Amino acid sequence: MSILCVGSVALDSVETPFGHAERVLGGSAVFFTAAATLFNPVEVVGVVGDDYPLDELGFLSERGADLSGIERRPGESFFWAGRYHFDLNTRDTLETRLGVFADFQPKIPEGFRDARHVFLGNIDPVLQHDVLDQVESPEVVVCDTMNYWIEGSRGPLLELLARVRILMVNDEEVRELAGEPNLLKAARWVQERGPEMVVVKKGEHGAILFADDWLFFVPGFPLENVFDPTGAGDAFAGGFVGYLARSGSLDPQDLRRAMVYGSVLGSYAVEEFSVRRLMSLPLSDIQSRLVQFREITAFETHLLQEEHV
Amino acid sequence: MSILCVGSVALDSVETPFGHAERVLGGSAVFFTAAATLFNPVEVVGVVGDDYPLDELGFLSERGADLSGIERRPGESFFWAGRYHFDLNTRDTLETRLGVFADFQPKIPEGFRDARHVFLGNIDPVLQHDVLDQVESPEVVVCDTMNYWIEGSRGPLLELLARVRILMVNDEEVRELAGEPNLLKAARWVQERGPEMVVVKKGEHGAILFADDWLFFVPGFPLENVFDPTGAGDAFAGGFVGYLARSGSLDPQDLRRAMVYGSVLGSYAVEEFSVRRLMSLPLSDIQSRLVQFREITAFETHLLQEEHV
Repeated sequence: MSILCVGSVALDSVETPFGHAERVLGGSAVFFTAAATLFNPVEVVGVVGDDYPLDELGFLSERGADLSGIERRPGESFFWAGRYHFDLNTRDTLETRLGVFADFQPKIPEGFRDARHVFLGNIDPVLQHDVLDQVESPEVVVCDTMNYWIEGSRGPLLELLARVRILMVNDEEVRELAGEPNLLKAARWVQERGPEMVVVKKGEHGAILFADDWLFFVPGFPLENVFDPTGAGDAFAGGFVGYLARSGSLDPQDLRRAMVYGSVLGSYAVEEFSVRRLMSLPLSDIQSRLVQFREITAFETHLLQEEHV
Repeated sequence: MSILCVGSVALDSVETPFGHAERVLGGSAVFFTAAATLFNPVEVVGVVGDDYPLDELGFLSERGADLSGIERRPGESFFWAGRYHFDLNTRDTLETRLGVFADFQPKIPEGFRDARHVFLGNIDPVLQHDVLDQVESPEVVVCDTMNYWIEGSRGPLLELLARVRILMVNDEEVRELAGEPNLLKAARWVQERGPEMVVVKKGEHGAILFADDWLFFVPGFPLENVFDPTGAGDAFAGGFVGYLARSGSLDPQDLRRAMVYGSVLGSYAVEEFSVRRLMSLPLSDIQSRLVQFREITAFETHLLQEEHV
């Protein structure tokens, strides 16, 4: 069954130490869908202006994305321009123009309302509520947010948590949300407000899944060439939710694998500008990187003898 | 066979958001030895002033440390005072007084010179050379350093690399040493200059071992209460080298376990001020945390079918 994804469909202009890309495909819904459709069909809800090159999203339709929920309105598409620093871990936003996204009112098409898996990309929590009001009985609601909403829309965001099964944010965000620098305590704080699980993304340092009484850590894949980090978090979400929807399970083994697939897709996303690396990515490449993740993290436990101590 | 450890034996005054400790045991050799002696005997070479409470190091002697290589000289011991910020990831140095450490000339006692495993704590690379000149035929030389020497003593440090089997530094240091922001490339740069392996410590984000054609990642242990991060890197080194010396092997499985034991010891070290948490740490606690590391990182690979794609 398809995943419902609601988020931004944007154009990005990105400068990195290695190059420059002008008005390329971007936005949380686009990165998410580019990753998730490698596992499972996705229904996308978003808004674009009349300047958006919708035909460039054709690769998504070809592998199971239903883009009929992307509304086209007169005006300009959401535009973001940013410049990454030398080490790629920090960036400056050079320009943000919301365009038609400023008045985005998600309308979930009739045929999308029975979705079991829902990904709420990083948009106003009030709109995230609106989306959930239109969905019949979602089983797995995964929600992203950011500091802007944590600071400016805290009330609706806290209420939203009660409707979310998995909150997926970065380390800075969960610390700010909980007002708590310790990640474990911050995750527990969130879990007391609704979400059964919290996924904390730490960029190149990996990601942690906090479940009820266990947790799972996946590293960032050590890459020789990180080209453009934009969208890595949404590609992670796409790999994670895409795999969960495909497996139809929330068993710990599937959640663990979902985390690794998230990191696999995040790691591929950063190898080229925009969603280019995800446009044609054979399942065999995804699988082989999953195996590599196992190789870089697996070890055998053993029993030390008391001989010396 | 004993590990030879050369490094600072210091007194630290530490402020964290949770408390304050005055003139407590510190220094790279002390943290290293407190961790390593849980696995294997250690011979320590260092210098202290006449103000040093050597009796407080008695717990190390009791479990196999030979402290006869710690020279006592008239004057003040190496003293460091620092204050950690709210999130414990950053700190300000409030005071550093080198005292007798300023003129430290490591003299390796006759009985220590046949050491197979040598840990060169973070001291002047010129002195690290002197140490190696006095050791007969070390098999595994593990070396730490810091930005101060990378910038101020680059020549001797680069020459030293040719004599080191495992360089163990943090992410910032390896980036600065190689002039390369990408960790993988920075590690390769180091490996081209001598060390067969590079261990990059990333604090709460874990550590990576770069070997010849493989690498291994261990996360930082997610702790609810990080009390004082001082010495975590040296405790990591102690767990790592301590286990390697005990196993007498450099097999990939032992290197992987050594990384995990390093992270185990680093994680215990930060639970209390100074080396307090390492003073009596049963092997069963070390083992149970090793198992927990496995639980938070292990996943089963599987084969995705091409059904949807």
